[in-house]
Amino acid sequence: MKKCEQIYEGKAKKVFATDDPNLCIVDYKDDATAFNGQKKGTIVGKGVVNNRMSNFMFQLLEKHGVKTHFVEELSDRETLVKKVSIVPLEVIIRNLSAGSFAKRYGVEEGIEFAQPTIEFSYKNDDLGDPLINDYHALALGLATQEEIDTIKAMAFKVNEVMKEYFKKLDVILVDFKLEFGKTADGEIVLADEISPDTCRFWDVHTHEKLDKDRFRRDLGGVEEAYAEMMKRIGL
Amino acid sequence: MKKCEQIYEGKAKKVFATDDPNLCIVDYKDDATAFNGQKKGTIVGKGVVNNRMSNFMFQLLEKHGVKTHFVEELSDRETLVKKVSIVPLEVIIRNLSAGSFAKRYGVEEGIEFAQPTIEFSYKNDDLGDPLINDYHALALGLATQEEIDTIKAMAFKVNEVMKEYFKKLDVILVDFKLEFGKTADGEIVLADEISPDTCRFWDVHTHEKLDKDRFRRDLGGVEEAYAEMMKRIGL
Ligand SMILES: Nc1ncnc2c1ncn2[C@@H]1O[C@H](COP(=O)(O)OP(=O)(O)OP(=O)(O)O)[C@@H](O)[C@H]1O
Ligand SMILES: Nc1ncnc2c1ncn2[C@@H]1O[C@H](COP(=O)(O)OP(=O)(O)OP(=O)(O)O)[C@@H](O)[C@H]1O
Ligand SMILES: [Mg+2]
Ligand SMILES: [Mg+2]
Repeated sequence: MKKCEQIYEGKAKKVFATDDPNLCIVDYKDDATAFNGQKKGTIVGKGVVNNRMSNFMFQLLEKHGVKTHFVEELSDRETLVKKVSIVPLEVIIRNLSAGSFAKRYGVEEGIEFAQPTIEFSYKNDDLGDPLINDYHALALGLATQEEIDTIKAMAFKVNEVMKEYFKKLDVILVDFKLEFGKTADGEIVLADEISPDTCRFWDVHTHEKLDKDRFRRDLGGVEEAYAEMMKRIGL
Repeated sequence: MKKCEQIYEGKAKKVFATDDPNLCIVDYKDDATAFNGQKKGTIVGKGVVNNRMSNFMFQLLEKHGVKTHFVEELSDRETLVKKVSIVPLEVIIRNLSAGSFAKRYGVEEGIEFAQPTIEFSYKNDDLGDPLINDYHALALGLATQEEIDTIKAMAFKVNEVMKEYFKKLDVILVDFKLEFGKTADGEIVLADEISPDTCRFWDVHTHEKLDKDRFRRDLGGVEEAYAEMMKRIGL
């Protein structure tokens, strides 16, 4: 598989074309940003963690019947994936209150919900990724009702699989963000990444944060947290 | 019916107890506010317009099977209503893009949606009435799933009745905000008000604004717009 021209450079990853129009290569960087790009920094080794953890999770999810963009890990930082057109909705599942939810609704962090919640943000940096609901997403033509239904069902399934998996590692899966894409043949698959950049992980005993909140909130021990998650997964 | 002590003074109305614990009296003021109370002013005669128009709309809706808090108009500014405990969700229905929707999602005003949209805001002034979805409202215990389903169905029904009604008056019903409450015996009824303060009305030919946007945006002719709506309704 030939790595051809770069087609996109995001805040955390680069995306390259390949000689197959239906495949691309994602290349994970150590660059870290928060608060819609206002805070910038580097987390040494993050690209390797996020690449390897994402691929591990995608393979676990495939085993549970969730279709993903994953094709093949090429190196510590590079992975071959199905090229998709990303549905411009960030999908957030929450099991406990934290982050923007706690702030927006004036509640403390760590409240466990009776049922997981799902929400969408309109993936649009200029607008600050605003919260959006099904009706609005439909009205703006961001997705069809069928796509929204598929994405919701897939996201809840991902939560069930991941919540159970991390529980065995003494990790609480607090919340996470997913992105979905449409392949050339119109299938919705899970895309982007699943990593400490995109999930909140808390140690079950100490509630110590093992994710990007250590960077966002200047808590120190950022690299150590990412490494600890890799160790628990056994990678 | 005796008007007893004032139990609440809001930005646009006062609420008084009566000698019946299940009833209260709302008293409509001319005070106008916008942008969560940051902009303040007076719209002369607004209290009379909003009281009489609300009562007209509530009676029209009752005829179409929508339960409301309306009991009896007592004067130009005062109405006897069922006392309810307000569900802390502002319910917004949109037929065309305008206001916060257009701003939040970066689209122009006046786009007609294929289907009306519904959204909830968490009724909490300190938090700035943030947008909230069903899952979050449930997680925070703001309403039950059954109440949310009832409120949604009632809100869409209100839209159908009002859209048709205003169409005959050459008025486009762009969007509006509703509040629902629970009566002593647990029934969900439409409460609060339906007025140019809580609806966007556009003349069908000129798209002239006939609502509170004239006040919000300093367009002038505020009182005239409220009067024009009363004239078209025949009040
Ligand atoms: N399989 C895929 N095919 C095509 N694009 C993908 C795929 N998986 C992820 N992407 C997109 O590639 C980009 C990855 O880069 P990165 O995560 O650094 O972006 P970002 O800085 O978060 O910016 P964005 O706001 O676009 O997500 C994202 O835009 C993501 O949506
Ligand atoms: N039938 C009812 N029984 C009890 N309260 C009601 C009823 N109808 C409306 N209310 C409440 O009475 C108040 C009306 O006052 P007003 O509209 O001036 O409030 P406001 O300034 O908009 O403040 P708020 O943010 O509380 O709505 C609102 O809080 C409204 O929810
Ligand atoms: Mg990204
Ligand atoms: Mg009010």
